[in-house]
Amino acid sequence: MATTEPLRPTTDGTSADQPGEHDVDNALAVLGMIAYSELGAFSRLAADAALAPGLPERLELSRTAGVALARLDRVAGRVAELRGDAGDAALAEVMDPFAGVLKEFDLRTEPSTWWERMLKAYVGYGVADDFCRLLAQPLDATTRALVEEVLSDEGQAGHVIGTLAAAGAEDATLDSRLALWGRRLVGEALSVVQQVLADNPRMRDLLVQALGDDAAGEAQQRLFALLTAEHTRRMERLGLTP
Amino acid sequence: MATTEPLRPTTDGTSADQPGEHDVDNALAVLGMIAYSELGAFSRLAADAALAPGLPERLELSRTAGVALARLDRVAGRVAELRGDAGDAALAEVMDPFAGVLKEFDLRTEPSTWWERMLKAYVGYGVADDFCRLLAQPLDATTRALVEEVLSDEGQAGHVIGTLAAAGAEDATLDSRLALWGRRLVGEALSVVQQVLADNPRMRDLLVQALGDDAAGEAQQRLFALLTAEHTRRMERLGLTP
Repeated sequence: MATTEPLRPTTDGTSADQPGEHDVDNALAVLGMIAYSELGAFSRLAADAALAPGLPERLELSRTAGVALARLDRVAGRVAELRGDAGDAALAEVMDPFAGVLKEFDLRTEPSTWWERMLKAYVGYGVADDFCRLLAQPLDATTRALVEEVLSDEGQAGHVIGTLAAAGAEDATLDSRLALWGRRLVGEALSVVQQVLADNPRMRDLLVQALGDDAAGEAQQRLFALLTAEHTRRMERLGLTP
Repeated sequence: MATTEPLRPTTDGTSADQPGEHDVDNALAVLGMIAYSELGAFSRLAADAALAPGLPERLELSRTAGVALARLDRVAGRVAELRGDAGDAALAEVMDPFAGVLKEFDLRTEPSTWWERMLKAYVGYGVADDFCRLLAQPLDATTRALVEEVLSDEGQAGHVIGTLAAAGAEDATLDSRLALWGRRLVGEALSVVQQVLADNPRMRDLLVQALGDDAAGEAQQRLFALLTAEHTRRMERLGLTP
């Protein structure tokens, strides 16, 4: 969803600026998920960089990994504020529940070419960022603003879009392979989202609040429609059939 | 060598602040070597981070990789100034001559444990940083100051020293294995230095200027004595037999 989507008020009666205990737990859950996702992005982009076909690409991707690290640091700053503890042990604690999720996604979507690797970064992050932005909407105003700011800067997107679109335009076979790969990626990404929701009642609550629905089942349906629509938009930006 | 060692004047008669063409080439050669070394450090630390035993260690090492990236960016800034071109292609061009060197070092020193990996980072970087700092001494004042500043902040050293020293103190077998590993690492690192000097007449000239010797052969002997002495100091800081 666009970052300009109107914000919804929290529904549990506390002020959005002065988070209560319940709100703090919610904020920490979402921040932990984002922190883990950025750490995963950092590791993946750095590994991608080491496999880059040339030094300029390697430099570019390494810097993109650095962007993920900078995002992680900003999220860590808010975690430290909310927990009153700036240590890595405290940060690791809120990240830990999400540690297994991306590992599985990575195992199931091992890219076989450089272009598949690039598309995975763009498509995989895209779904994760959209999901995190949505779940952040019912959070306290400070956390919500931070999340929207951190996730709105599109890190690696510009680079990926430019190189993938150019390569796809020149090579119809590559183009159709990447279209197929994109569909596989979004399918796996959505099943990660489903897993996170299944494992975390807190995330289900946040989702219902964010979407203003009464039933978690309906909220999930709407969520998947939203995430798929955003995925389609991204594939189209690359000139690929969604 | 310590960063407080007195600076030597350039010996080719140009002003240190207004580098001539010859000086610019020298500066670009040293900056290219440092840039490649930092990019290599980034990739290695990021890969190490992905193998860390726990999330706090992974966070710490990922940030350390970020430090290498920040150093690379500062070096890249000076390359852009000297070349009048801020593009990655221009940067890659000055880095390229050093691309193969570290690869070989990495192949010959594949760590078999987490501790060996940590020691490799500390010992390997130590030799590289000392070598680069020395070769930067005959460069123009701006470049030299930048190199000393960038390489003086000991990035990952504090973390490595703390964890390795603690682990070694508790385990005599680990301690003696790491001592052996340290000797192997410095041997391989010195042969990388030798290779760089053999391949680059410019680096040999800079070395002779930096050490104030007349003969390249003698300068190399003195260099190896210096680098070994610094290595010994580092091993002793870890409580390991050099």
